[in-house]
Amino acid sequence: MSLIVMKFGGSSVGSTERMQRVARRIADYKEAGHRVAVVVSAMGDTTDDLIDQSKLLNSNPPAREMDMLLTTGEQISVALLSMAIHQIGHTAISLTGWQAGIRTEAVHGKARITDIDPNRIFRAFEEGHAVIVAGFQGMSVDGEITTLGRGGSDTTAVALAAAVNADVCEIYTDVDGVYSTDPRIVKCARKLNEISYDEMLELANLGAAVLHPRAVEYAKQYNVRLVVRSSFTQNEGTSVKEETVMEQGVTVRGIAYDKNVARISILGVEDIPGVLAKVFGALASNEINVDIIVQSGVQDGKADFSFTVSLGDKDKAIAVVESIRGEVPFREVNSEEDLVKVSIVGAGMVSNPGVAAKMFDVISNLGISIKLVSTSEIRVSCVIAAEPVQDVVRALHTAYGLDTAEQAFVGGPQDRR
Amino acid sequence: MSLIVMKFGGSSVGSTERMQRVARRIADYKEAGHRVAVVVSAMGDTTDDLIDQSKLLNSNPPAREMDMLLTTGEQISVALLSMAIHQIGHTAISLTGWQAGIRTEAVHGKARITDIDPNRIFRAFEEGHAVIVAGFQGMSVDGEITTLGRGGSDTTAVALAAAVNADVCEIYTDVDGVYSTDPRIVKCARKLNEISYDEMLELANLGAAVLHPRAVEYAKQYNVRLVVRSSFTQNEGTSVKEETVMEQGVTVRGIAYDKNVARISILGVEDIPGVLAKVFGALASNEINVDIIVQSGVQDGKADFSFTVSLGDKDKAIAVVESIRGEVPFREVNSEEDLVKVSIVGAGMVSNPGVAAKMFDVISNLGISIKLVSTSEIRVSCVIAAEPVQDVVRALHTAYGLDTAEQAFVGGPQDRR
Repeated sequence: MSLIVMKFGGSSVGSTERMQRVARRIADYKEAGHRVAVVVSAMGDTTDDLIDQSKLLNSNPPAREMDMLLTTGEQISVALLSMAIHQIGHTAISLTGWQAGIRTEAVHGKARITDIDPNRIFRAFEEGHAVIVAGFQGMSVDGEITTLGRGGSDTTAVALAAAVNADVCEIYTDVDGVYSTDPRIVKCARKLNEISYDEMLELANLGAAVLHPRAVEYAKQYNVRLVVRSSFTQNEGTSVKEETVMEQGVTVRGIAYDKNVARISILGVEDIPGVLAKVFGALASNEINVDIIVQSGVQDGKADFSFTVSLGDKDKAIAVVESIRGEVPFREVNSEEDLVKVSIVGAGMVSNPGVAAKMFDVISNLGISIKLVSTSEIRVSCVIAAEPVQDVVRALHTAYGLDTAEQAFVGGPQDRR
Repeated sequence: MSLIVMKFGGSSVGSTERMQRVARRIADYKEAGHRVAVVVSAMGDTTDDLIDQSKLLNSNPPAREMDMLLTTGEQISVALLSMAIHQIGHTAISLTGWQAGIRTEAVHGKARITDIDPNRIFRAFEEGHAVIVAGFQGMSVDGEITTLGRGGSDTTAVALAAAVNADVCEIYTDVDGVYSTDPRIVKCARKLNEISYDEMLELANLGAAVLHPRAVEYAKQYNVRLVVRSSFTQNEGTSVKEETVMEQGVTVRGIAYDKNVARISILGVEDIPGVLAKVFGALASNEINVDIIVQSGVQDGKADFSFTVSLGDKDKAIAVVESIRGEVPFREVNSEEDLVKVSIVGAGMVSNPGVAAKMFDVISNLGISIKLVSTSEIRVSCVIAAEPVQDVVRALHTAYGLDTAEQAFVGGPQDRR
């Protein structure tokens, strides 16, 4: 008998039938003698519908009231799922974030979980209930309802798994697991049986939407074993954990791309000490996440440097840069959109020289110029023009030997007829 | 500068436009320098829609989970209303029942408010906010989300008004105020400028849907001044308070009718001591509200008695009666539906003999037989066949001189041409 945390996203509970299927899965675990805590997101389009409603009444709704509004989506989900479980003869109780003891920072829209008091949940286990917890939400010390921001339900599930010391945290989604790249654009993408936290973290950060980076970080930090699997099949899924066995000859584990990227360049910056600190300190204190940072050499006491932010933060970032012109003199600031960041990820590449070179080679052979490059021990990212991203990802997928057998066949001689 | 509690029902906030109109009303009060706390119900059909959703997943949903589900309706309302207020340049914060300090019994679906801690609300006043509170809900001592049952939002508003010692509690509805009878069936019904708690209580209990009885009781108990008025007009409305000035020659203030009534008769009951206590104790402990109770004289040590319950409780009540046959021997129990309880209400009738007689007279002149009668100091109720209730109400309305001048005109000579 184990303690299992299951997390179901909005599409997994997006209809009565799906809700019933989820209830059945939970019942199966209970019948197998497991203790089950379930984290659920808002059903299907509920959150978007609520946002639309709010826009009709306020062009720029206060974050506090948005949290108050949006948290109802998950509350509806947990209540309905609990009812569905009762209907098939099992007992369950639903809990809001605050009832589940989830405490967060006193920030609205993107709070971080500070701690979880699991007593209410353990009491429910003792009473024999499946515990259904509203994802994405919590309560601040001053009794305000908060939300965790995008991917919040994944984070809730992992944090909960850590708090109750679960044997495994299963993240149910609409895909079979983590793929070597986006299966929608590369038919021969392969499902990975297992992947390390670090690799998953890179992939997650790079826009492989299957798992939220913050959740992966949390899992790594508390060593929570994650399994990403489909809520529509019984397939094994992908296991995310500390140690992974390298597959023969695989140096690159996956290829990710992210279109939500804008480049900002600051040109002719006075090369006074602490310039970078000033610029990126100002951006950070305005809660703008900066990704790639590149600085070219200094000429005549002037430096140029570029960095990337998400599209949504672009204008704000430029405003911040302008606002510190007094402290940090510079000639001009410019920006660029319609970009994509393509990345290769794999713990294998550390010990394999030439992995990055091959990437640059593949991209330039497609006649595409690389605007920014950033590397880590297990990742190489290139920012290029947004189109044709498919061609680039496919070419890299093939170049790094990730194509599945089927594809070899599809691409094989018989195919040419 | 006063402290005003306003309550808006579901239809008053049933659309974007209506929500905006309510926000405007609140802003007007704030601009006049008043402190405002607002209690809101779920928008339009939200509650019914949620109930429909639940039925798809559970034929008999647990009350606890229903509370968890339904309380989201009010939470959505308060968040949206708060946003609408911000949009027109005023500040507001929304609060769930538990955030507003509303504590209830640990019962689901029909909890009573045990106490209200107004500190959070006063803090919000000091911060200059309009405070928007979710009606119909609260929290039990063990941190469970509860609902107050039907009419809960009225009760929330009155209890809140008492807790913050408000100058007035305005109940906004889709009618102009309290009428001498149902304006839908009697065109010449008159709006009452004021009415006493007791009279209002009788009318409320008798199915004048405008105010929930529990709310009126609460208002009487804590001497909260109520005003019932329309959310669509600026009309004065009806003031509900302790002392009211009698209008000249008006002994009967209003005429109410209630079709939600079933008669149950127990025949040939052994007239042993404590029989009534046993029967109605058993019904009460099964949470069945009994209205009229009539016992005919005892013959040969056997008594017959009848009582009325709401239609929904009829079968349950019969089952309870059957279940105590052992302790309370009787010959048979029978029941009747398709009834209506017609009542005349007015503090004036105490000092005016013959008021009840006139009622019986009017009804019998219509050739209708009276099945049960019950009287109080300020009320006479007759249970009769459901049809033709309109004729009965109209005839009584005229007989007690309640018809408005307009009607006298409409009914006057010019009209005959």
